[in-house]
Amino acid sequence: MLTKATLRFLTDLQQRKHRLAAERFVVEGAKSVIELLESGLRTERVYGTRAFLVENDWLLRRTGVPAEEATSEELVRVGSLVTNDAAIAVAELPAVAAFSGAHLPLDALTLALADVRDPGNVGTIIRLADWYGVAAVVCSPTTADPFSPKAVSASMGSIFRVSVVVADLPEMLATLPSGFPAVWGADLSGADVHSLALEPVGLLVLGSESHGLPPDVAAGLTARLHIPRRGRAESLNVAMATAILLDNFYRSH
Amino acid sequence: MLTKATLRFLTDLQQRKHRLAAERFVVEGAKSVIELLESGLRTERVYGTRAFLVENDWLLRRTGVPAEEATSEELVRVGSLVTNDAAIAVAELPAVAAFSGAHLPLDALTLALADVRDPGNVGTIIRLADWYGVAAVVCSPTTADPFSPKAVSASMGSIFRVSVVVADLPEMLATLPSGFPAVWGADLSGADVHSLALEPVGLLVLGSESHGLPPDVAAGLTARLHIPRRGRAESLNVAMATAILLDNFYRSH
Repeated sequence: MLTKATLRFLTDLQQRKHRLAAERFVVEGAKSVIELLESGLRTERVYGTRAFLVENDWLLRRTGVPAEEATSEELVRVGSLVTNDAAIAVAELPAVAAFSGAHLPLDALTLALADVRDPGNVGTIIRLADWYGVAAVVCSPTTADPFSPKAVSASMGSIFRVSVVVADLPEMLATLPSGFPAVWGADLSGADVHSLALEPVGLLVLGSESHGLPPDVAAGLTARLHIPRRGRAESLNVAMATAILLDNFYRSH
Repeated sequence: MLTKATLRFLTDLQQRKHRLAAERFVVEGAKSVIELLESGLRTERVYGTRAFLVENDWLLRRTGVPAEEATSEELVRVGSLVTNDAAIAVAELPAVAAFSGAHLPLDALTLALADVRDPGNVGTIIRLADWYGVAAVVCSPTTADPFSPKAVSASMGSIFRVSVVVADLPEMLATLPSGFPAVWGADLSGADVHSLALEPVGLLVLGSESHGLPPDVAAGLTARLHIPRRGRAESLNVAMATAILLDNFYRSH
């Protein structure tokens, strides 16, 4: 049985303002909670069913994370994901250090999301970054919160392994180090990705499917590319486009 | 104002058994309804707000599809997509002709989905097929219904342009024409897609993310391939994997 204060605290963490105020986010579902514990990310507490706590007793002991028993009903009530009812964890939001373009590596590819509004897409893109070994994803402030329960869930644990930062993109683009290799963006008038031998270095910026890149971000691009279409679909969703672009960047590496 | 019978009919079409019995499916949302009308698919009737009917009067006249005025509240009540409230259409399910492997073309790539349970993924894969010019997607009976409102919506109109068939996959594999080029499937022990010069001919079978291909389908593969992983994500979701594989099949074509 969780206390009223705990139920309230967990429910509040469904909202971004409360996550920012508490510097905490929730991780829902047994599989994600286990991945969180195994990632070494700072975890405040786990709430789990008796079965979950028994089954993961060794992991909880090893990580030293305090656990509290809860009923499935309680977990469903405070969470957003009706089917994931065996555990919820509260983890610390990664510290928001001052961040600028100067922090971007010259010898690796970084992803940036400008105005990607769907949390499922944001989580999926973080999962793709993790698959291809992209170390960091920078989200614009108008991108769906990567630490929302839906984005965390869609990332399938990858958000615990990829560095995810929220930052102002035009500011970041204005402070890139000298010698920064390239700022890539998708653009219908850009080069055909299949005709290029892409090196996975620089920054790849993805925008919203319906509106493309905001003008102040598009202005910072130094290279434009597009995925050629053979059929009749009007567009690809941003997660699909990211999958295809990343595969093209890493196919020879 | 819709009649009670209409409200009931539309609500029923949310369920597969009613869609099969009525040989009809619903298309929700103004954008999708317009794409349906423009596709030339047989449409029984459109229910739209006054604003939608006025704005699309020319299209409705040209296609000769009868339209009925409905309130936003009514459309939300009978539909599954709360934000798409300007129109709903009822369209005819494509005729289910006898279908076997003998119908697959030798000179083009066809997609097959074995046990893909999420309707959003099914719709997204149909959209990808449409982007790359894949003419047909064959769904196993245990795959999420491609004509469910969620799949139709995720396809963003592509389900009106791609042939989508539900068929027993092992049976289809057993009746492929002689000289059929290849039955491709994703398999961790398969060849690296980046090392192959793939021809977009034959059949590409995608399975469920968590369970892979069912044994009776896997047994019919003649070629196995995998997408190399550089990072740490455990897997890709099936729609992402489809995007990447299709891009590899069509990159030189």
